[in-house]
Amino acid sequence: MESIDVPVALLGYGTVGAAVNRLLIDSADDIERATGHRVRVVKALVRDLEKERDYPPPEDVSGNRVLTTDFREIADDPSLAVVAEVMGGVEPAGAYVLELLRNGKHVVSANKQLIARRGAELFAAASAGGVQLRFEASVCAAIPVIKVLRESLIVTNVHRVLGIVNGTTNFILTKMEAGASYDEALAEAQRRGYAEADPTDDVSGADAAAKMAILATVAFNSRVDLEDVATTGITAIAPADVEAAKELDMVIRLVGAARLVGGSFDVRVQPALVDKQHPLAKVDGAFNAVMLQGDAIREITLEGPGAGGVETASAVIADMVSVIGTMGTGFLQNDATWRQLPKLPAGDSSSPFYFRLSVQDRPGALARVADELAQREVSIARLVQRPNGSGATLHLVTHEARVGALDEALDALGGLPEVHHRSQPLPVISDRGVAELGWA
Amino acid sequence: MESIDVPVALLGYGTVGAAVNRLLIDSADDIERATGHRVRVVKALVRDLEKERDYPPPEDVSGNRVLTTDFREIADDPSLAVVAEVMGGVEPAGAYVLELLRNGKHVVSANKQLIARRGAELFAAASAGGVQLRFEASVCAAIPVIKVLRESLIVTNVHRVLGIVNGTTNFILTKMEAGASYDEALAEAQRRGYAEADPTDDVSGADAAAKMAILATVAFNSRVDLEDVATTGITAIAPADVEAAKELDMVIRLVGAARLVGGSFDVRVQPALVDKQHPLAKVDGAFNAVMLQGDAIREITLEGPGAGGVETASAVIADMVSVIGTMGTGFLQNDATWRQLPKLPAGDSSSPFYFRLSVQDRPGALARVADELAQREVSIARLVQRPNGSGATLHLVTHEARVGALDEALDALGGLPEVHHRSQPLPVISDRGVAELGWA
Repeated sequence: MESIDVPVALLGYGTVGAAVNRLLIDSADDIERATGHRVRVVKALVRDLEKERDYPPPEDVSGNRVLTTDFREIADDPSLAVVAEVMGGVEPAGAYVLELLRNGKHVVSANKQLIARRGAELFAAASAGGVQLRFEASVCAAIPVIKVLRESLIVTNVHRVLGIVNGTTNFILTKMEAGASYDEALAEAQRRGYAEADPTDDVSGADAAAKMAILATVAFNSRVDLEDVATTGITAIAPADVEAAKELDMVIRLVGAARLVGGSFDVRVQPALVDKQHPLAKVDGAFNAVMLQGDAIREITLEGPGAGGVETASAVIADMVSVIGTMGTGFLQNDATWRQLPKLPAGDSSSPFYFRLSVQDRPGALARVADELAQREVSIARLVQRPNGSGATLHLVTHEARVGALDEALDALGGLPEVHHRSQPLPVISDRGVAELGWA
Repeated sequence: MESIDVPVALLGYGTVGAAVNRLLIDSADDIERATGHRVRVVKALVRDLEKERDYPPPEDVSGNRVLTTDFREIADDPSLAVVAEVMGGVEPAGAYVLELLRNGKHVVSANKQLIARRGAELFAAASAGGVQLRFEASVCAAIPVIKVLRESLIVTNVHRVLGIVNGTTNFILTKMEAGASYDEALAEAQRRGYAEADPTDDVSGADAAAKMAILATVAFNSRVDLEDVATTGITAIAPADVEAAKELDMVIRLVGAARLVGGSFDVRVQPALVDKQHPLAKVDGAFNAVMLQGDAIREITLEGPGAGGVETASAVIADMVSVIGTMGTGFLQNDATWRQLPKLPAGDSSSPFYFRLSVQDRPGALARVADELAQREVSIARLVQRPNGSGATLHLVTHEARVGALDEALDALGGLPEVHHRSQPLPVISDRGVAELGWA
């Protein structure tokens, strides 16, 4: 097969951009053998031409300089059919991507915040322009969950996505389980380079929320906005929570959960108690894992490093190559969000929950608690009572309960004279919710 | 985007074929939205037109009968660009697929034995004919490992593939770990439909070997024949092995392992001791998991149901749709096996190993054992000594050792008067062999 030369451009030439260029050059033969195309970077948009770079781009074959500060050199070059956006940030990246799509250029983006915040507009522009927007690298780096959802599970009605999609918090919680305090665990994550100096984006759940918004959008073919994701971070997790989880043979993890419930979507990121036997409890350190549950496939789980410059670059290149391999065929050029599902009202979300109560140790206390729960149809699946200084601590795990009903019950419990203190409820993930897995 | 009508044909209309037709009909709108194409089965080759079927094909729109016993109606129909082979067996399926590829038709195959045995010939025919041969469903049903290897990990030099690729044996070994005998575990697997009445293909390792031959071929871009896979089944696994694994905090699993070692491939299927903390030890019941280790991605693991009619059909359809989405672009139409790597000589394969010795309980016995091992440069990583009736049992785990050296050492040990009995060695999988996973 005759080789076809494909010039491409990058928006941004930082860690990921340089890794894309290096991998494209090092793997040019592999790519050509697999696809019949020779892909090379001819332009890369940067802010500063003179900045020192670990991997400065080699000159173009014709001696042209690759780095440029002028976006027009990319946008107005008709020879460039594919552009990878690896600059990060919502603006000006968003404006650039939108213009490129409108001008009929295919775009690959590694930009989680951009896709999570402006995805709907970008998808629509791509569809209208008859070009592709691929964004594998925007979620969990090299883990190919977007491609699998869009191309492999095309006839599976995926109704639930569960994920550990933030390695930093997974690492911190794993360390806390081993006895570290939150501050110690965070410091170690920072030392290892898993957490930024300012860890807010990770520990607040914001990073995970952006990924879950994108995953839910693709899985359910419906726009799910970042603000649609109910998000709680891990900063309020106390050693008492970690201890309580142990008591129940569970661990605490920051879990992203997206569900289709009677035609509405429910997407959340929150700390959850996860049964130690559940696959999500076993995701190692800074790794990510995403479980996809659907009709035809039951459940497929993908696990791997969810971050890293080379890992992200590998996903960017896979997307570029997939674009090149499908240009002009119509494949994946329709709007991925062809329907708009409603969001499930917050109170209607349901799950088993864990919470604990500090109660007076006297006859009737437990009966009052059980009665208040029963009145709201919250039924108890597990109960562990332990003496504490002045009374007793009750650890409770409910059966599947509506959040609205649970909140009412907790308010009522908080008003009982027998109850000194109640914890925030945490959702519990103890089974996979799919039938006949040979797992129990 | 205008919809394009794509008539396709099936070779075979058993469980998988019927599920393909049903899913294509039920999901026609989903597929059309994603790809702009409307895919429908217009012909299906069967042996018996009159057989009763759970899901008989609805008539074609023009009232034509879909089922046919005449292969020529498919091979000679120029309107059919894509054919899915879901009939199974090496012949006549192989001859049919070869003719279709030579006649310029794209083929999707769910046939593990065919691809493992005649893949090289079929890949070459596809490449020469400028058509695609896709075979996702031939390995681990709906787990999209072939697509991920070929399309997502295109610039990653995958140098190791580790897998639990046979659910039947995984289920049996899991049950043995819980205390069942081999016969009891097999009987339960048969009762649940995980094992055939004649379980030979599973328990001998033959099924796993065919999958590993295909995976290694795709991962290393080199033909790996079925007979190149060193295969040992689970029939010789004794309760003593299961007990010994427990003693070492490990479990026994049938593991497929493919490695690139200095430019040679080494592909094996054998029972191995797997550390309980290793992800492969945690693969549930009848599920499959495949770990891909490569330069740019470190490690990506895919897990899911490795069998099932609907799961397999889902993979067949994904392949059909991918073919349709890339027809005429040259993408994936080159020979996947562009190089022929040599096979690593059997003795040069290396791994940590476990074995046990029954020895006289007298001074010097251990020293003799240690000396014989040291002479062949087999070094001991762990040793547990337990008294038995007349002497002691030594459980030994070596550091990474060459199979050739280990075999010599074991022969020498067998000749020692102090050694009453030695077990067969089993490879040990205790780390992932990739750096900095935050996993130890």
